[in-house]
Amino acid sequence: MDRPSPATQDEVRRHNLSSLLRLVHVRGPASRADLTALTGLNRSTVKALTEDLVSAGLLRESAPVGTGGAGRPSITVEPESELVYVLALDIGVEHLTVVRVGLGGVVLDRRELAQAPKDYELRRTLKRLEKLVGSLLADTPRKARCVGIGVGVPGGVSNDDGTVRFAPNLGWTDVPFREHLTSLLGTALPIDIGNDGDLGARAEHLRGAARGLTDVIYLAGEVGVGGGIILGGRPVAGHGGYGGEVGHMSIDPKGLTCRCGRRGCWETEIGDQAVLALTGAPPGATLEHVLAAYAAGERWAQPGMRRVARSLSLGVVNLVNIFNPQLILFGGAVRNLYVALQPLIHEALKEALQAPGEQVRLGVAGLGDDSVAIGAAELAFSRLLDDPLGTLGRLPSTLRLPA
Amino acid sequence: MDRPSPATQDEVRRHNLSSLLRLVHVRGPASRADLTALTGLNRSTVKALTEDLVSAGLLRESAPVGTGGAGRPSITVEPESELVYVLALDIGVEHLTVVRVGLGGVVLDRRELAQAPKDYELRRTLKRLEKLVGSLLADTPRKARCVGIGVGVPGGVSNDDGTVRFAPNLGWTDVPFREHLTSLLGTALPIDIGNDGDLGARAEHLRGAARGLTDVIYLAGEVGVGGGIILGGRPVAGHGGYGGEVGHMSIDPKGLTCRCGRRGCWETEIGDQAVLALTGAPPGATLEHVLAAYAAGERWAQPGMRRVARSLSLGVVNLVNIFNPQLILFGGAVRNLYVALQPLIHEALKEALQAPGEQVRLGVAGLGDDSVAIGAAELAFSRLLDDPLGTLGRLPSTLRLPA
Repeated sequence: MDRPSPATQDEVRRHNLSSLLRLVHVRGPASRADLTALTGLNRSTVKALTEDLVSAGLLRESAPVGTGGAGRPSITVEPESELVYVLALDIGVEHLTVVRVGLGGVVLDRRELAQAPKDYELRRTLKRLEKLVGSLLADTPRKARCVGIGVGVPGGVSNDDGTVRFAPNLGWTDVPFREHLTSLLGTALPIDIGNDGDLGARAEHLRGAARGLTDVIYLAGEVGVGGGIILGGRPVAGHGGYGGEVGHMSIDPKGLTCRCGRRGCWETEIGDQAVLALTGAPPGATLEHVLAAYAAGERWAQPGMRRVARSLSLGVVNLVNIFNPQLILFGGAVRNLYVALQPLIHEALKEALQAPGEQVRLGVAGLGDDSVAIGAAELAFSRLLDDPLGTLGRLPSTLRLPA
Repeated sequence: MDRPSPATQDEVRRHNLSSLLRLVHVRGPASRADLTALTGLNRSTVKALTEDLVSAGLLRESAPVGTGGAGRPSITVEPESELVYVLALDIGVEHLTVVRVGLGGVVLDRRELAQAPKDYELRRTLKRLEKLVGSLLADTPRKARCVGIGVGVPGGVSNDDGTVRFAPNLGWTDVPFREHLTSLLGTALPIDIGNDGDLGARAEHLRGAARGLTDVIYLAGEVGVGGGIILGGRPVAGHGGYGGEVGHMSIDPKGLTCRCGRRGCWETEIGDQAVLALTGAPPGATLEHVLAAYAAGERWAQPGMRRVARSLSLGVVNLVNIFNPQLILFGGAVRNLYVALQPLIHEALKEALQAPGEQVRLGVAGLGDDSVAIGAAELAFSRLLDDPLGTLGRLPSTLRLPA
């Protein structure tokens, strides 16, 4: 307690490289002067460290930005976004998305597939993923290097062993998803799997509408509704990391039966299939059709949508009372639902307890449909960011799909 | 980032005094050898620091405990519990409790008062508190020193300005409670106010059934039901500290109207007055009567209690899904409710999502009726523990009520 035990020189260097790369990854191009100011390191240390990261192919120096002021313009470094990337897989019930995300959080390329409900059976999902990834890699420049794979799943995940413990809307229980992906992709690259809500929250907090905030709830919506929770500036996901399942908060003991087996779970009222059913939408209609019909004042859509608004508000006010967040962010399909029903939901906020009701703001995901994929990419980048040169040394140099 | 800026000698000393006093406060009597091992400080530093704390009247040395082993037995220090105390006020709707808690968390003396519902009007509450505190102080040894006052309230509190923002079951809105208490007690001692659920959680985490755990929900129950939440080892209370109001999670859109104005709040089904009403208990009956009648199989109590069990389970499963806690602790009146309904609630846990359902344990508050008061005492002790000698120097030396 007198003072911390001194770090070894290697540890200090790794720590400094990590801080520097993370800064550029999160904030984008920065001058050496910026980095000196932001890290508190001295100028010559920053110069040496950036040179190491440039030699490793993680950063590149670019033409100095004219300062207009006195003194030499400082050299600018930026992430090698085109050359260093991760694969981010966003597994939904109704969609599969594969995104190639460059260092710095840049979306380089993407493939997606809408799938009909019930099409999410594991083996079929894997087949489709194989195609999507194959197509994406076929268009990837040879000299670009994949440094990890991140996956978002609508369910509870144990990232220790890569198992999806539960994903009621996919019908998956204890699926060893990392194993499946490893053999599917035939790669020794690390594969990290997280819950879609947690990843969406992470991405919005780092790069989206929740930047700089400390107390945020992100809602990931589709057939089901997941949540990611940030309190006191930190993600909080409970003891095993399975927390945040706000879609499985029951709001009605006599409600509809949920895929999880309970009655009246929030997602049985506000998930997109639920909205179609509750409004009595015509066969083949999508959520967009229903929302358009509601907005156009078509009579058939009104009563159902009023019920959905009531249910959405009920859960939102519960979250306000339970968490006292600064911001509740609507992502995925609940984003469109929130936009359509905004006036009704803001009105209902008056039912929250006074002080937390005053403090909360509602908004839509800043990264749109990409929150979960960007969050999965961040999960995949985290090894590299924690220990840039060490991780690069340990990684296999190529990602190849089996022929 | 190279290394932390060096602390001044004064800062280091304050930090070390704080660590040492906190250790003895939390763990109880300790030998200098224990303290040396636990703090990582060297033996002579520990000796000098304990001597300072002994001279200040915060610790005392006691006869060494025989070690039975080789070497000199080490001198033991313990908190001066009889001489250094705080006043802890637990403000309920149906009870007022004032406890004198000695350094080390020892309950030295207490006064309590049951009050009929609706008797909690602010001015009457203050009158009663004055009497309770007066009676307690009359029996306090002259040489004992009060170092702070901590208060638990069933509502949302802004401790910055000492205002109770909302306490629906007391009917209080924006009550400047610290001001009232300051003039009532005529003291310059610091008064800290917190939410009952948060304080109960804090006490259980430090000294009760949640010791050593990281993810815990504590339920404080009476007329209303409050909650205190600990995640990742830290209390999390949201942006303004108003979070944890799980009693105002609506579980039924067609439910009873709550004092907060909403319908179907959890506490309208499991608060003690709610249980009396739902079971149709005879006039004048208490929760204990109803629980005894239920346990004895008296017919009138069965249907209502089954409904209460269903509602209690519904909220518990919601909390399991939302938070993935290791432990949910039942305190106050919900403690007795949980004990009476335990088999039904454990059965209902099967409805939780698989992984969080497996990981959660249910239990009763280890500090019984005192969780909130002990938590309020910890809040009051925290200034002293953060800066022992500095705080002592700044405190007024006596606590007197106006004649």
